[in-house]
Amino acid sequence: MGASMTSEAAWTAASAVVEDLWLVGGSVRDELMGRSCEDFDFVTPLSADEIETAIRAAGRKPYTLGKRFGTVGMMAEGRKLEITTLRGATLDDDLRHRDFTINAMAWQPGLLEDPYGGRADLEAGVLRAPGPARESIRDDALRILRAARFESELGFSADEELKEAMARYAHKLSGVAKERCALELDRTLSGPHAAKGLRLLAETGALVWVLPELALQESYEQNSPYHDRDLLEHTLAVVEAVDAADLDMRWAALLHDAGKPYVRAEKPGRSTYVHHELLSAEIVDRVAVSLRWSNARHARVRELVAGHMAPSSPLRAADDSGKPADRPRG
Amino acid sequence: MGASMTSEAAWTAASAVVEDLWLVGGSVRDELMGRSCEDFDFVTPLSADEIETAIRAAGRKPYTLGKRFGTVGMMAEGRKLEITTLRGATLDDDLRHRDFTINAMAWQPGLLEDPYGGRADLEAGVLRAPGPARESIRDDALRILRAARFESELGFSADEELKEAMARYAHKLSGVAKERCALELDRTLSGPHAAKGLRLLAETGALVWVLPELALQESYEQNSPYHDRDLLEHTLAVVEAVDAADLDMRWAALLHDAGKPYVRAEKPGRSTYVHHELLSAEIVDRVAVSLRWSNARHARVRELVAGHMAPSSPLRAADDSGKPADRPRG
Repeated sequence: MGASMTSEAAWTAASAVVEDLWLVGGSVRDELMGRSCEDFDFVTPLSADEIETAIRAAGRKPYTLGKRFGTVGMMAEGRKLEITTLRGATLDDDLRHRDFTINAMAWQPGLLEDPYGGRADLEAGVLRAPGPARESIRDDALRILRAARFESELGFSADEELKEAMARYAHKLSGVAKERCALELDRTLSGPHAAKGLRLLAETGALVWVLPELALQESYEQNSPYHDRDLLEHTLAVVEAVDAADLDMRWAALLHDAGKPYVRAEKPGRSTYVHHELLSAEIVDRVAVSLRWSNARHARVRELVAGHMAPSSPLRAADDSGKPADRPRG
Repeated sequence: MGASMTSEAAWTAASAVVEDLWLVGGSVRDELMGRSCEDFDFVTPLSADEIETAIRAAGRKPYTLGKRFGTVGMMAEGRKLEITTLRGATLDDDLRHRDFTINAMAWQPGLLEDPYGGRADLEAGVLRAPGPARESIRDDALRILRAARFESELGFSADEELKEAMARYAHKLSGVAKERCALELDRTLSGPHAAKGLRLLAETGALVWVLPELALQESYEQNSPYHDRDLLEHTLAVVEAVDAADLDMRWAALLHDAGKPYVRAEKPGRSTYVHHELLSAEIVDRVAVSLRWSNARHARVRELVAGHMAPSSPLRAADDSGKPADRPRG
């Protein structure tokens, strides 16, 4: 990572090489939110060949790995700037096909292009598709998981139309590469509002397509009007109680009680869940393979889950703090 | 496979080489049931070294791959006979530590050693541990799956003590090598009474330890007094309706509707399960990895499951015949 760079500095550096640029996407959103930005993406009406030619003419080295997708990169102040040829006939066309309005703005110094109300949604904390939500999700089902990720990272809320589209096309997640799903789930789990993002996936029925192992938590104790979804809510509380920077620990928190409903037994006055940590560990094995985890992550998450009942377990304190009985009920 | 061989012929051939032999285990059971036998196992008070020496002295070749477990093999009439040193101080001791009474008999021509009532259990169709069932299952949890396998292959019924022990130690299946579990499940699925064997695993809670993917079927519609476990029973009917000799097809039958409860939606007057075959296929992926299936089996079962709604699907006819509405209700 180089030193931090402002959007204006990035735009100035890129514009000195390629004419007619707009800063787009996450960097515009981050700039408007006052957050530092890691990546700078630009669009231009120029073709990929013309972008490459302009970069060479300036005596710079073009990075052409993404050229067949219309993207050519260049370095500026130790940072990679990516310049992409417009998708669609106009800038508005390009922006309309992006995932959410908050990512569908374009910026030049002193000028914000915001045809779909992204800035208002940013201020209101709303996730919304620029065009019809059903088209957006149908065309790219990974956006279902991206919506959850942005809820988790930003604390925003998907609007009803987006949620309806997520529910309608949740099954299309079965056609999305598992590695891409895993990346979005990692980011959802790492966010400060992880419970919110995961709850969105559960409520729209999307969760079963990526983590069917949690399906029994979703419906757990569903016959009680006061304990609906208690186990999932307990799990989400534990997720948020452990360090967001320790992704393995967050995965372990998400899965630590997954085995509980499978081994529930009724005793006078209470339910027991003997050996549930062993079944949760079996479930970790399935998730690890499904999401193509590294052996290192698989081993650590499994160990954390299988050992979470030990007094010395780092999950134990979070687990206890997440118990419904310890929390005030709204 | 050589030509068929009677137990008497096997005993005569082995006794000509090693003195003081008893035919034991499955070959005795099969002989008493009038079934042809594939493998012949003997025990003797001799040590493994003494068995090997006796085989060499007879000018035969000893097979010593299992010698560290006390077993030495020899060929007779193109068939491998395995001779094992007694486990325990006496023949009774050895038999008492076998899995079920029907496998805990020893035979010499004209003489049946049956200290645990195996012959009576064979006639009554009962699976029972020779000693305390809890000890038997605790010492070897794979016996949980073997009980289901024998129910499936023979149509027998585990006794209450055995079922109680299976339920108590089901969690110990998490410590059994997956390849060994897979082999017993394959044989359970291939048997003429597959539904009976699988039902035993479900009723004792053992099924969730090897196939947690079916847990939602077990509890499906559990709130209706007349439809308890309907989805699992539907599944088991489909399993028995497809060719027992086609193991891939039986696995596909077992998993074809596994996705249904995850995608259930309520419409006026009926429930829908749109796209359940896609989620069932995702579940196949998990089972395939967990049970260490070959790529070939994984691919074929997945294809059968994902395509089971097509009119041309070989699973479709069995699926329709297994629908509860088509069956008389008891």
